[in-house]
Amino acid sequence: MAAARHSTLDFTLGAKADGETILKGLQSIFQEQGMTESVHTWQDHGYLATFTNKNGSFRLPPIVRGGTIDRYWPTADGRLVEYDIDEVVYDEDSPYQNIKILHSKQFGNILILSGDVNLAESDLAYTRAIMGSGKEDYTGKDVLILGGGDGGILCEIVKLKPKMVTMVEIDQMVIDGCKKYLRKTCGEILDNLKGECYQVLIEDCIPVLKRYAKEGRKFDYVINDLTAVPISPSPEEDSTWVFLRLILDLSMKVLKQDGKYFTQGNCVNLTEALSLYEEQLGRLYCPVDFSKEIVCVPSYLELWVFYTVWKTKP
Amino acid sequence: MAAARHSTLDFTLGAKADGETILKGLQSIFQEQGMTESVHTWQDHGYLATFTNKNGSFRLPPIVRGGTIDRYWPTADGRLVEYDIDEVVYDEDSPYQNIKILHSKQFGNILILSGDVNLAESDLAYTRAIMGSGKEDYTGKDVLILGGGDGGILCEIVKLKPKMVTMVEIDQMVIDGCKKYLRKTCGEILDNLKGECYQVLIEDCIPVLKRYAKEGRKFDYVINDLTAVPISPSPEEDSTWVFLRLILDLSMKVLKQDGKYFTQGNCVNLTEALSLYEEQLGRLYCPVDFSKEIVCVPSYLELWVFYTVWKTKP
Repeated sequence: MAAARHSTLDFTLGAKADGETILKGLQSIFQEQGMTESVHTWQDHGYLATFTNKNGSFRLPPIVRGGTIDRYWPTADGRLVEYDIDEVVYDEDSPYQNIKILHSKQFGNILILSGDVNLAESDLAYTRAIMGSGKEDYTGKDVLILGGGDGGILCEIVKLKPKMVTMVEIDQMVIDGCKKYLRKTCGEILDNLKGECYQVLIEDCIPVLKRYAKEGRKFDYVINDLTAVPISPSPEEDSTWVFLRLILDLSMKVLKQDGKYFTQGNCVNLTEALSLYEEQLGRLYCPVDFSKEIVCVPSYLELWVFYTVWKTKP
Repeated sequence: MAAARHSTLDFTLGAKADGETILKGLQSIFQEQGMTESVHTWQDHGYLATFTNKNGSFRLPPIVRGGTIDRYWPTADGRLVEYDIDEVVYDEDSPYQNIKILHSKQFGNILILSGDVNLAESDLAYTRAIMGSGKEDYTGKDVLILGGGDGGILCEIVKLKPKMVTMVEIDQMVIDGCKKYLRKTCGEILDNLKGECYQVLIEDCIPVLKRYAKEGRKFDYVINDLTAVPISPSPEEDSTWVFLRLILDLSMKVLKQDGKYFTQGNCVNLTEALSLYEEQLGRLYCPVDFSKEIVCVPSYLELWVFYTVWKTKP
């Protein structure tokens, strides 16, 4: 089935006018643009006029309808944006989510999880931000990554000579897709689930965190790179906020007293969701403080907020 | 006049089917979404069915039609993108161009010249890139800025203790608008057209460049921040490329042998336009070499190419 290019035209009337008058007024404009016209009077129901353009001379690009590739991926704040996507590289359903990897001319391959743009190969800015924007010294440190299946954070931290990085990702299929098609992000790091200074556990992070907490294991850094909407099958998740607080509480339990917790928040325009998140930070088992940073992640087409959380003196 | 929220729905047929069958198939889906329906059979011309939704349950945001604020500003590579614009701050026609300053929730005020998104208050990345990405030492240097009416470059360079910065902007009204509404970009620098180490000339840059070339005046840096489409009234502009080459030739004439010329190029997806530009660089009166850098300018919603050009040994 061929795709259609669909444009709509808006105009405002300066005064009251009937359909015929409006059409006559518009016709000269369309004729100037070299458009062919097909107008149907529709008894009492109004008019339907279609105008077909030869050369796309209007300012607003048409919406491509019925194409095999979906180029429209709304932003988190609900705006309509068109991506320069020209190829579906990967499209599979895992037990947890739909996993798409689409090729963008300018951003490289983009990972889209259940319809949310997660990370593109152009997005080192995301990885840098969620690692503390270059201000941290990871040498000899113990690091825990929650999620992070695209391998970007793991790849970057391992370069910085940490003592040990443990990454806990629930979805093997995300790792398999990214290992193959997001190599500008993950390099070779996902080719092996174990290396000299890292290990990847294919597990739900909740029981892992509980185990570590029970064992008294502590990390210098905990980086929460889970998807915004929880996909954990753990029974505790009766609501997103309860789940988020559970993750935060468990993370604080495995974080050293002088450790740091990094996470992505939300787009800068969703001020209410950001406030609610910050409220949760005041309801943890231990007192914490936080700072935030606004970062431009290229493929997101909107500014994004990243958080740093740390324990305050008990 | 109230704005309308306009959605379109695409679907693909698995097999041949007539209009009635298709409608019946779709109706159950729409009913599930709680939509009210109004279907019109239209004799031989097909069907027009409109469905009205209560709560916006579809993935794709609607296009807002007929609103008083235009939120759709296409990218340079022709994609449809919606901005989070909530206010028209300034909208005037100067003798040279239409000047709009629109407020975006996340990007601050955005300067739009004749329909092209020029610069937003969030876009320090643009100014940094066109100044050489922090790798240059402007202390004690002579700098020429072509265009730059938003004041961003001038504001940033003056902080770096240059000997003298001369900015040549043709459009007083751009300066007036930005001075008032783009203050996060220009600070106080445009409040006075002359300072201890800078001057702003409200002139067409072509005659100014010719005068400087004749006088043998030389600069350490020439920064071309002119709009992509020329607005100079100079008679030489019979085509964009001829105009661009004229600016380049004159700029090289006033550039010291070890000086640098910075300019913005185009969006990374317009590879043909970029190649044509690079071709022009091989056709100047003196031999030059160049490098380029790809930069994410937040409000552009596409990656942008910036050029550095320098004279090679004669």
